[in-house]
Amino acid sequence: MQQLQVGIFIFDEVEVLDFAGPFEVFSRTRLTPGVASRRSEETAPFHVFTVAAEGRPVVATGGLRVIPDYDFATAPPMDLLVVPGGFGTRALLHDTAVLDWIRRTAAGSGRVTSVCTGALLLAQAGLLAGRRATTHWGALELLASLDPTIRIEPTARVVKDGITTSAGVSAGIDMALAVVADLHGEAVADETARYMDYIRGGTASVS
Amino acid sequence: MQQLQVGIFIFDEVEVLDFAGPFEVFSRTRLTPGVASRRSEETAPFHVFTVAAEGRPVVATGGLRVIPDYDFATAPPMDLLVVPGGFGTRALLHDTAVLDWIRRTAAGSGRVTSVCTGALLLAQAGLLAGRRATTHWGALELLASLDPTIRIEPTARVVKDGITTSAGVSAGIDMALAVVADLHGEAVADETARYMDYIRGGTASVS
Repeated sequence: MQQLQVGIFIFDEVEVLDFAGPFEVFSRTRLTPGVASRRSEETAPFHVFTVAAEGRPVVATGGLRVIPDYDFATAPPMDLLVVPGGFGTRALLHDTAVLDWIRRTAAGSGRVTSVCTGALLLAQAGLLAGRRATTHWGALELLASLDPTIRIEPTARVVKDGITTSAGVSAGIDMALAVVADLHGEAVADETARYMDYIRGGTASVS
Repeated sequence: MQQLQVGIFIFDEVEVLDFAGPFEVFSRTRLTPGVASRRSEETAPFHVFTVAAEGRPVVATGGLRVIPDYDFATAPPMDLLVVPGGFGTRALLHDTAVLDWIRRTAAGSGRVTSVCTGALLLAQAGLLAGRRATTHWGALELLASLDPTIRIEPTARVVKDGITTSAGVSAGIDMALAVVADLHGEAVADETARYMDYIRGGTASVS
């Protein structure tokens, strides 16, 4: 089947679950229910890969070392961009190469999403202007200060307003499942959550 | 502070969230609440590292590439062993080097835990004999067949019976939070879940 290309941006001090949650959801979604379908890519609607600024290994929060699949120069076109958060986002708020890449990649992707403080990078790149959005509860004020036109949704777990943002860390799993539901229906999202033994977050998303 | 050493076993085709969930919990737990305390290791009660059979990068489910911190020959002593699951466990059921390492490491660790089908490896290593235990819902029968003396708990999310096992994939987050609660109290576990915006799993654990 024609797979949607999902690119996950990773960087030093990216929060582990911020990128690993959506990676898990998108890479384990299958259109055929059950455990056996997960043994092959036959009914996998997504192909997931990681992208970093440079090709060297990224050191995530807590010291987890991940080898990116691509760097900015080699990354293939993607249909869906995931920007995770973590303390590493703070340094990147002033990194024009990263902000330019996010802006350029977002322009060429059908969907742009963030997890946790990944929203700070989207805001700094100018992508959240005038939109409803959320981030980790500890960064709501910082998000508002980066772009006062953003309409902050402090209690939503997932906010869809052209760009999809989500609350802290594990809310990225719900964000990814919400994308799965949009594209393939709630039954496929629920079955993927069931495969992962994941209890989907309660707060309704804003559309 | 004196940190508890947490070793997470990783291997080809390990399920991403199986190891990333506990990695996130143990590496982000702090005894001082809030966001600021996460910026340093000052009140971090755990030091987390990954261990693979060999030093080469591990390719997790979906293609995520992780560089292990240690191999079997170089791994330091650990206080807590985490054995995650994934389809890669099936090949390891017949890998005597891995089973020997698990048995030896478990004997030297104060606590042994598993996520998802990591329980299959513990069972095959003889560590679950006569104990209550669980695994991913799709592998309950296989777990029982590996060691008929195991008392399977098919509905529990986390089962504590000397060794702590957990249900599928994301139940590993609840397992790790349960360990945090045992060692540092429910308030610290709840605050860590809150930092992660994680809604703790509802099924009561068996003690």
